[in-house]
Parts: sequence; C-alpha cells; structure tokens
Amino acid sequence: GVQDAPLLCPHGHIDPSWLADEAFRWSSPTELLVKPDHYLVRLMRSQGVSEAQLGIRPRGGSGKASGDGSMEEVADDREAWRTFCAHSRVLRGTPTALWLRESLAQVFGWRDWPLGVHNADASFDALSAKLASAEFAPAALLQRFGVEFLSTTDAASSDLRAHTAIAARGLPFRVVPTFRPDAALQIGASRWRAEVTALGVAAGVRVKDYASYLRALRARRAAFKRAGALAADHGVDDLRRTPPRALPLHAAEDIFAAALAGDAPPSSAQAAAFEGHMLMQMARMSTEDGMVMQMHCGVHRGHDERVARLYGPDMGGDVPLPQEFVHSLHELLNAYGTHPNMTIILFTLDEAAYSRDLAPLAGTYPALRLGPPWWFHDSRNGMRRYLEAVTESAGIDNLAGFNDDTRALPSIAARHDLWRRAVAAWAAEMADDGVFSEQEAREVVWELAYGRARAAYRIPAEPEAG
Amino acid sequence: GVQDAPLLCPHGHIDPSWLADEAFRWSSPTELLVKPDHYLVRLMRSQGVSEAQLGIRPRGGSGKASGDGSMEEVADDREAWRTFCAHSRVLRGTPTALWLRESLAQVFGWRDWPLGVHNADASFDALSAKLASAEFAPAALLQRFGVEFLSTTDAASSDLRAHTAIAARGLPFRVVPTFRPDAALQIGASRWRAEVTALGVAAGVRVKDYASYLRALRARRAAFKRAGALAADHGVDDLRRTPPRALPLHAAEDIFAAALAGDAPPSSAQAAAFEGHMLMQMARMSTEDGMVMQMHCGVHRGHDERVARLYGPDMGGDVPLPQEFVHSLHELLNAYGTHPNMTIILFTLDEAAYSRDLAPLAGTYPALRLGPPWWFHDSRNGMRRYLEAVTESAGIDNLAGFNDDTRALPSIAARHDLWRRAVAAWAAEMADDGVFSEQEAREVVWELAYGRARAAYRIPAEPEAG
Amino acid sequence: GVQDAPLLCPHGHIDPSWLADEAFRWSSPTELLVKPDHYLVRLMRSQGVSEAQLGIRPRGGSGKASGDGSMEEVADDREAWRTFCAHSRVLRGTPTALWLRESLAQVFGWRDWPLGVHNADASFDALSAKLASAEFAPAALLQRFGVEFLSTTDAASSDLRAHTAIAARGLPFRVVPTFRPDAALQIGASRWRAEVTALGVAAGVRVKDYASYLRALRARRAAFKRAGALAADHGVDDLRRTPPRALPLHAAEDIFAAALAGDAPPSSAQAAAFEGHMLMQMARMSTEDGMVMQMHCGVHRGHDERVARLYGPDMGGDVPLPQEFVHSLHELLNAYGTHPNMTIILFTLDEAAYSRDLAPLAGTYPALRLGPPWWFHDSRNGMRRYLEAVTESAGIDNLAGFNDDTRALPSIAARHDLWRRAVAAWAAEMADDGVFSEQEAREVVWELAYGRARAAYRIPAEPEAG
Repeated sequence: GVQDAPLLCPHGHIDPSWLADEAFRWSSPTELLVKPDHYLVRLMRSQGVSEAQLGIRPRGGSGKASGDGSMEEVADDREAWRTFCAHSRVLRGTPTALWLRESLAQVFGWRDWPLGVHNADASFDALSAKLASAEFAPAALLQRFGVEFLSTTDAASSDLRAHTAIAARGLPFRVVPTFRPDAALQIGASRWRAEVTALGVAAGVRVKDYASYLRALRARRAAFKRAGALAADHGVDDLRRTPPRALPLHAAEDIFAAALAGDAPPSSAQAAAFEGHMLMQMARMSTEDGMVMQMHCGVHRGHDERVARLYGPDMGGDVPLPQEFVHSLHELLNAYGTHPNMTIILFTLDEAAYSRDLAPLAGTYPALRLGPPWWFHDSRNGMRRYLEAVTESAGIDNLAGFNDDTRALPSIAARHDLWRRAVAAWAAEMADDGVFSEQEAREVVWELAYGRARAAYRIPAEPEAG
Repeated sequence: GVQDAPLLCPHGHIDPSWLADEAFRWSSPTELLVKPDHYLVRLMRSQGVSEAQLGIRPRGGSGKASGDGSMEEVADDREAWRTFCAHSRVLRGTPTALWLRESLAQVFGWRDWPLGVHNADASFDALSAKLASAEFAPAALLQRFGVEFLSTTDAASSDLRAHTAIAARGLPFRVVPTFRPDAALQIGASRWRAEVTALGVAAGVRVKDYASYLRALRARRAAFKRAGALAADHGVDDLRRTPPRALPLHAAEDIFAAALAGDAPPSSAQAAAFEGHMLMQMARMSTEDGMVMQMHCGVHRGHDERVARLYGPDMGGDVPLPQEFVHSLHELLNAYGTHPNMTIILFTLDEAAYSRDLAPLAGTYPALRLGPPWWFHDSRNGMRRYLEAVTESAGIDNLAGFNDDTRALPSIAARHDLWRRAVAAWAAEMADDGVFSEQEAREVVWELAYGRARAAYRIPAEPEAG
Repeated sequence: GVQDAPLLCPHGHIDPSWLADEAFRWSSPTELLVKPDHYLVRLMRSQGVSEAQLGIRPRGGSGKASGDGSMEEVADDREAWRTFCAHSRVLRGTPTALWLRESLAQVFGWRDWPLGVHNADASFDALSAKLASAEFAPAALLQRFGVEFLSTTDAASSDLRAHTAIAARGLPFRVVPTFRPDAALQIGASRWRAEVTALGVAAGVRVKDYASYLRALRARRAAFKRAGALAADHGVDDLRRTPPRALPLHAAEDIFAAALAGDAPPSSAQAAAFEGHMLMQMARMSTEDGMVMQMHCGVHRGHDERVARLYGPDMGGDVPLPQEFVHSLHELLNAYGTHPNMTIILFTLDEAAYSRDLAPLAGTYPALRLGPPWWFHDSRNGMRRYLEAVTESAGIDNLAGFNDDTRALPSIAARHDLWRRAVAAWAAEMADDGVFSEQEAREVVWELAYGRARAAYRIPAEPEAG
C-alpha cells in the first residue's frame, strides 16, 4: 500500500550540516523538538510562555532576553522541556500535536501522551538517551523513514560545502540543495549588499553592475545544478507588491547601480519593481537550466517585531497575506507558462485562492503545478480543503504531490503519513460517491503520495552517484 | 454532560430594562419573536413581506409606512403574526428556523411546526397566554435556561440605571453591562456631537477638548467597571478604513476640536484617522483597567437605505465586508498584543480571514483570542467551518468559546445548544480520526462550551453580590 | 422522485442553429465532445496537448497553428480523438470526467471507461455511427433528457432567425433566446463600433447618438421578448471595475459620441464608467419589460494571450477574479433591489463571496436571487460548498435553482443529475442532523431541482405556441 511507499522530500529545511557530519547528534529533545520548531514556539508564546522559558537565546547569544523591558534568564534544556510539557495542552487540535505524538511514538517509542508535568523529566531522560545513539543520527532517521530523495534549501551564496561532504558519505538516499536566492534579490532589504558581495565571492565573479550580477546568479545556479539541485525556490512575501514583470534593461541597471553604490536605499516602489523584474529573470534562467521554479507567496514576515528584533526570522511571528495570482502572474505565465522546459510550482497561504486563482490557472498553463497545502494549512483539515478545492478544476496531474517543508526532522515520516491518510480518505469518499472507480482511486492516491512529486520536480528514477 | 452546563453569555444584546422591572411582560409573540429579530425581518423582506405587514412602525411612530412611495397600514400584532406564519417557509435552512422551532418547543411547549396559515391564530393565542404569566418574564426564562452570567451591551453614555435596578433585585445569576463607546468615537457621524454631550453628562465631565474627552471616557469605563463590566466592545465597520493607529497628539486634538466646534464635519480621511486613533486609546485604557477589548469588524450597516431611513439601525439591512487583519492590526498588536493585562477578542464576518489572518495571529500574540462565528455565521455550517478553519492554527485555548450575541431572549438556550452540538460533532469526528483521544475530546468540548468563555472574559468563579 | 423531474435549462449556450435544422447531425465525437468543450480543451492543454492536436483550427481557418513559433499540422477528427483518449487521465477528479463518463454511458450506451489508447478507435467508430442517426439529432437528445424549457444565449444584434425556425418546428419543449448585449455595451473593446452598427441594423434604428442607441437596445429587448425571451444576461468581467452606477446624462452622451465617432478610443476609466452606467440602464429596462437580469461576474477572459490570439474567446484560457458585491452593487440594489417587477440573478466565481456578500444580500433585497455554482464550481464539491455557504443566510427561496450553462449538449442530463444528487445528499445530511424534517427535505430538494428555477426565471407553466 501507499503507506509503505518511499518518501520524496523535494522541498524542506533540513540543515545539511546535520547530514554532512556522521558524528552529529542532537544534545537533547529540547534542542531537537522545541527550540527550532517555530510552529511550536508560536503556540507556546500565544499562551504566555516566553522564548527564554523555552531555552531560546536572543540573537547575540546573551543568556538573557528582554521581552517587555524586563531581563529574563534563558532556561536550560531540561527546564525548558519541563515548561514545554507543562503547557503542551495549547497544542491540542493542531498538527504540531499530531506530528509530535506520532514522532515520539514511532521514532522514540515514547507513548505516554500527552506530555505534562507528570512525565516531563522521564521523557527528557528517555529521549536524551536515545538521541545520543548512532541510531538517532539524522541520516539514520531519514533512512529509517524510507526517504529516497531530500532537498535542502540553501542561499544562493552558499558554498555548498555541506552538500559536498554529504555526497562523499555515500548515503543510501539522495540529498541535493535547492537554489534560494531571496536575499540576493530583495534589493530593498538592509542585508542585500552584503549578500550580493557573498554571492560574488561564491560565484567567483566581481559584481560591479547588473550584468555581472546576472552572471554571478547564473554561475551559482550552475553550481547548484552540478550539486544535484533540481529546483530554485523563491519566497515572495507579497506577490501583489512584486508581481513578476520585466523592466526595461536600463531601468534595472539604474536601480541596481544606485543600490550597489549604497548612497541611498532604493525607494519602496523601485525595490518592488526590481524584485518583480528579477523574478522574470529567474524564470528565464529556469527555462535555460531546467531547474523547477518554486514560488512560496504571501506572508508578512516578522509581524511581531519584538520577536523579529530579539530572535530573528523563522520564530513563529509570521502571518499569511491575501494573495492574488491572476493579474500578478499574467506576464510571467504569458512569457513562460507554455515553455516546454519550464515548471513553476506555486504555494499560497490564502486558501481563497485555491479554487479561484490557482486551480483554474494550473488547469490551463502547461508549465504550472500546484504545491501542496503550505505551512499553516499542512494539516488534516487544511489538506482536505485543498484536495476538495483544487482537484475539480486542476485535475490530479497538475498537482505537485506532497513535500514536508520542515526543519523538524523527526516529524518527516509523520507529516507524509498525515498527507497520505488525508489523500486516501478523500479518494475513498470520492470513490464511494462514484467519482472514481476503485482502480482510479488507487492510482490517484499513488500519484498524490509519490508519483506527482517525482514528476513535478523531475526527480530521476535512479539515485546518481554522489 | 456538556449539554447541561450553565450558560455564560458574555456578549449579547438583551435589553437590561427587561430585567430591571420584575413586572415586565411581552405583550404578544409578535412583540417578542418577530419585530425585534432582524434575522427574521430581513428574510421576510427578501420574499416581499414589508416591515409594515410585520407590524413594524417607521421611526417617528406613524402608523403608516412609505415603502416604494405608497403609504401602507402597519399591521396589528395578530395580523402581523398571521403574515409571518404564512411566509415562514422562507426561513427553511436558516438558523432562525432552528432557533424558533426549538424555542417554541422547549420554552413554550409548542410543537406544531412549521408555522403556517393553519396554525397562526392558535399559536398566537397559546403563546400570548403564556407570555402573560410570571413564568415567562425575562429573568424567569434566563433562570430556566441555566444562565449563570449575562452581559448586556450599553452605550458609553448610558446611566446604567437599569443595571442598578437589576443589581437591587438580587437575581440568581449575574448581569453586567458592556462598555460600547462606538457612538462617542465615530467622529464622522452626524450623531457624534450629541453623543459626546451625553457622554460628558454621564461622566460629570465638561467635554471641551480632547483631554477632557479622554477623561470622560475613562470615567465612564470606571463606572462600567464598578457596575461589574468585564469588557468593552467596539463595532468597527471597516477595519481597512479605520485601522488602529495612533496619531500625534496635536493631530488628534485638532481633529477633535474642529469636530466639536461643529463648523464643518471632519473629512472622511480625518474621521477614519481619528477613529483608528481612538481604538488605540481604547486599547491602552483596556491595559489600564483590565476590561477585555472586543472588536466586531466588517459590516456595511444600512446597505438598504430605504430600511435605514424608515426604520433605523438593526433592521436586517446590513451586509458583511471583506476584512484584512494583518496590516490593519499591525500597530495594535505590536503595541499591546503581548501586554500581560490585555485581552483582545476579534470577530469577523469574512470567513476567508479565519484561517488566513485570525488563527495565525491568535496563534502567536498572547493577548489575542478569537470570538465565535458571528451573526450570519452563527449557524450549523458556519460553526463547523469556523472550528475546522481556526483550531489547527490557533489551537483551542486561543478561542473565546461561545456567546449568543442575541436580542432574541427565548432563543438563548437554543443558540448555546446549537454551538454545543456543533462542537461535540466536530470533536467526535476529530476523535474518530485519531486527532483527539476520547479524554481530550471531552476536555475540548467542555472548554469550548464553557471554560474558554470564562477564561477569555475573566468571569469570576463566584457571582459577586449585586 | 426528483431524479425524474423534467429539466429546466434557463441559462446555457446551446447553439440554436443545431435545433433550427431538423437535418443537423454532428459529424464525429471529436466535433461534438472535444473541440467545442473549453473545459476539456484547457485540461488537455495543461498537460501539453496542443489545440492543433485536438483538431482545433486557429481563427482564419488555416490548417496549421503557430504555437510557440513552430507551425503545427491540425489533426483530423479521428487522430484528434486518439490524442484525447490517450491523455484522458488528466480529466480524473474533474466534473468533465463525470459528465463525459455519464454521457457516454447514458446517451451512447458506451461503458468502456476510461477512454484510452486501447479503445480510442472503437469508441470513435461506435459514437460516429450513432451520431449519424436521427435519434442523436440535438432536439431528439433534448427530448430524451426530458428538457421542458431551454434558453440559448444570443447577441443583442442577433436576427433570431434560428429561433424563428425552431418555433416553426413545433418541438415538444420550449426554446427561447436570452438577450446578451455585452458586445454592444463594452465601449472600450475594439469590436464595439461594429457591434453597435449591427445592433442598429437588427433594430431598424439608425444609431447616431446615445438616445438612438438606447432606442435600439430597447427595440432588441422587445424583439427578444416577442421571441419568448424571459431574461437578459450580462457578462461583467470585473464588477469592481464597472460597478453599476448611473452617469449624468451629458457624461454618458459625451462618452458615447466620442466613441462612436471613433477618433480615439475612450480611456479605460471612461469605458468602465460607461459600462457601469449601461448596467443601470439595463436594470431599468428590466423593470420596464420584466426580463430577468442575470449577471455573471468576475472573470479575466483571454488570460492566456496566445490562446486568445490564435483561437479566439471561450477556449479555456479564462480565469476567475476576486469580486466584491457589497459596494459594487450598492447603487443598483438601492435603485432596483425592491422593485416589484425586478429579478436580478447573480453568479460569481469567487466562492469567498458566497457567504460574505451574496447570501446576506439575497437574504434582504426582494429582487435578488443567487444563481447556482458557476463554471469552475459546477462540480460535486463546488455544489456542496455552495449549498452549505448560502442557504443559512439566504434561505432556499432566494436561490435560482440550477442551470447547466453548457454548450456540451450531450452532458445536459448528466449535469442536472449531478446537481440533483448534490442537493439530495446535502438535504439528507441536514435532515439527519435535525435541520429539516423529512417532509421539508423533500420539498427543498424539489425546489432546488425544479421549482426555484421556474420561479426565478418566471417560466410559464404551459409552453406557449411557438
């Protein structure tokens, strides 16, 4: 059955350094399951549990955090775990609770659920002991899960050293990078100039103008491709602000030159226009090098400015935005939506766009595929809503299957399992209702669980030698 | 089981004068069930039944109404009841039908449903007879329903005299006011100056400038609090137009001064800015006095101008608006969203915002709670959509449970019952699917039926002496 | 039971010339089932099957099509059918698959499903043979389906000759035109002047200014009404751009005069204002002549410009738009929403508007009815979402029942059947849950399957003589 099919993980945020070093071990369940999981941290925060209580250090590494003015001691791992367990009821009803319950049971054999004050120390000790063993090294877990293919997400300026080391290990599954150039494209952000410098260094190109900037980007794409990358990924914070639209060359050159000179930051309108322009350039390069173009669209990052300031990005202070794809993608799709070497995979957090914008667009443009329900909607009901909303207009073959999109490695199997069960439940209901024959239902489940991801990302059938 | 738990009614529109006077009786079922229920009046109108046919007098009290030009006799209560019964089929499928059927059966013992021409007179007579008895006085009905706590909704300028009288009665349940200052804040409305005068009178403050205006508001909040109020409530017609954002002090002072002088109404932009500014002031006062800040956002009031002109507000001519909370609430949540003395409860009529804006926001800001499905969505399917859309991102503990939000007193028990059944059905489905254990499902149902409302509104465990 | 009730088809796109000529036969299944069905063509295209491969000729009638630059031979009908069968898996999960499967089985007795390479030639031959027989003439099929009433959709400039011929045939069901003046109203479109000329010719009015333009429109409405038309239909591409709002007479006259002179096209703002103005004129004429005003709102037509350029409209390159009805329809509904001679039927592709805008509006304005789920949402799940979203606020009696909206004649019965089953499943669930009694559920199913369409379009009980 489909529950035993291998796992394809073509988009996610596993840290490649975990896999590069055979000796890597997580030091505690807090380090593995609590601190890096912004799904969980946000829910704890929503009930008044501070980051410091969860053991999270502010940027700069101080042992104290300043929340609403007061300085707070950062808890050690055991104390943080106790706090987490004491407040775990806030997770009820969320996919985080499911993933955690299933990870604990299936990966660690820990079945005393829910976690609470009564079992905090015992679980901390039991999980810590297991994590010290080779059986719980990251690669071992992925192998146990049946992972066949895994993409990480890597800055355009990354030296990909971890991927070189992974390749040298000869793991029994394939691990490749994904080209994520956001920081090098977001010309309005304060970090942009530093990132362009890093991009040039990584590419071996002196970036002195727009032309050399494009050369550097192209060089990095080629390097990613040599490292096995099948896809690029673009985090588009608000597609309504930065629709992909080409600028006249001189306009792009001028904005770039002024921003690189650094005398004054580009205006908000210039930055938006340039970013939209660069999405068109990235699309063109995708048609040239064949790397799939993923777009994750519509999120207000760092909405809680306190969290962003103290702890940086990806700490659970992000919130979805309404998105509009019909006008925003008009130029992109007319330029590249029927290109034979192009695949664009779209993700959104605005469920209203599923049946209104996305499924109809994917049901006509050959280059377009829809990514699975993303982030807040990667959940039982989110999946059901997605399947019901998109399949009738887009069909099955225009979907990109599933990806787990996670940095929470132990939950990977549980996440795929949740998707597969959601797909199976939906297909069974359709079959009951005469929409699918039993044979069709089986095929469709297989496609959504495995076949579509392989097809959309063009994952080769046989792992190549690293 | 949860079906027998006491009722908490922390937000609603019961007229406190009904409870202040032990001798109050409704004169007929038309007076109780038809005329004041804008849910019902709108549906009758949608099928061509006029307000006059339902016995509703135009403002000014004339016995004739001018609809499309013709003058129409206003029906007496019996005739209006006959008309209502003759057209009751339009209610099919709406929660109004359910509430009415259940109220008639459980409160009045009337089970000949549906109402129609055949039973109009009999039902009119049977209900009228019951309504004359002490058993059907408002407080008696609330006691019969098991109401434990009830908030009314009261203008900031209210003298709260009815609440003083209620307190003196020593009812076996607690009744408190809610501070609703809309009319005193909506500086662009024609009624504003009169309301500010009334506010000053009630507060014992001569409102001559912005500073004394704030003093008067603060004084009224204190008076409401002394009368037991736990919450303020803000009707925000369009949050996109009046996002809570603080103005520089002199700007607020200038807009206020010009509006109070009355030489010219503020421009639409000035009015919107001032109203948004005042929401920030109200939030700050909530952090000071601890009154929960409710916001009911997004409704075009008086869409049908004929109805508004002839019959005034709350006559069923109101329609929901799309709302956006991520940008609109950015300043408010960054200022007060983590304040330890703050609770903000949000309501919307735009269901697209449930999973996109509201649940993610409530899943990170500790001050934020989500109100139950409101008004048009206070229904079987509306409740199911709400539960499925918000719980996966917000969890259970960030919800505010239920409130009946009604002026239709006999339906209060039926409304809570509908919610409790919806919650139980949803939780049972989640348990069947392995999301909840049976124990978790029972706890979650209890929380949503009772516990969360008590927690969100900080309802004291023991009724205080009146 | 309701499954045997006659079919009312008050809105659709059946070509009246098919019915005018008793001798008309479709030449092949490709001609009938593939080429004219943009639902199907778009899905084929989404998986890389070109229009030419499906046998579709570009405008101008060339036997070759230029897609991405290359010239491509247009397949003959058999080859196109083979290609279609070979790719039919893309239809899985879409209503097109259901309609096709059911049409083949019930109309043609062909049950070897799915279509594929293995049965392409056999099915082509079997279907072709049947199509040659009188039993498969269009009128014979409609009769077999139990069609009682059918509206076509006809340009305002149509001479209605086909309808004259149909009337002369004395068919056992009624066929009438629908007045669709879009091309004559869209003053910003390049085809507008030609259409106004055609309108004048058809009306026998020399259109030389705004006044004569209105006279011509009124004359055509009268002609349509004489031919049995019960309704007008307005395709409003984006109601947010062209909200119905009356212009001062001189402004309308000026825009019209300048556009008719043809010296320069109207500005985009002028065109939008004029189109919105004309919707108000059309509404006024509807109150005068009693023709129902249908509005199909919110679609970006020709999104894929290659498809539009090569193949023209209605080729599956159209995509829904977000719509907003509360502000956009404010003036229209205040002017005509309570007019006793008015019925407005609204359709949208933006499901977010179902429960937010449309059901509340239909639940208060007596002239307003909601059309069934349209186009992309005319599907199992789309129907369920619609029923659940609108009935609780609008009730049943404010819905317009079903219409099949199709040019795919053989699927008409299957489409009605899908709706009836969706309605029955929804009503059964409501009855199980105590919302409806069994009697109410039966009545409601009948109303939605038959009664509401008759009432909303005011279809006379007895067919008149042609």
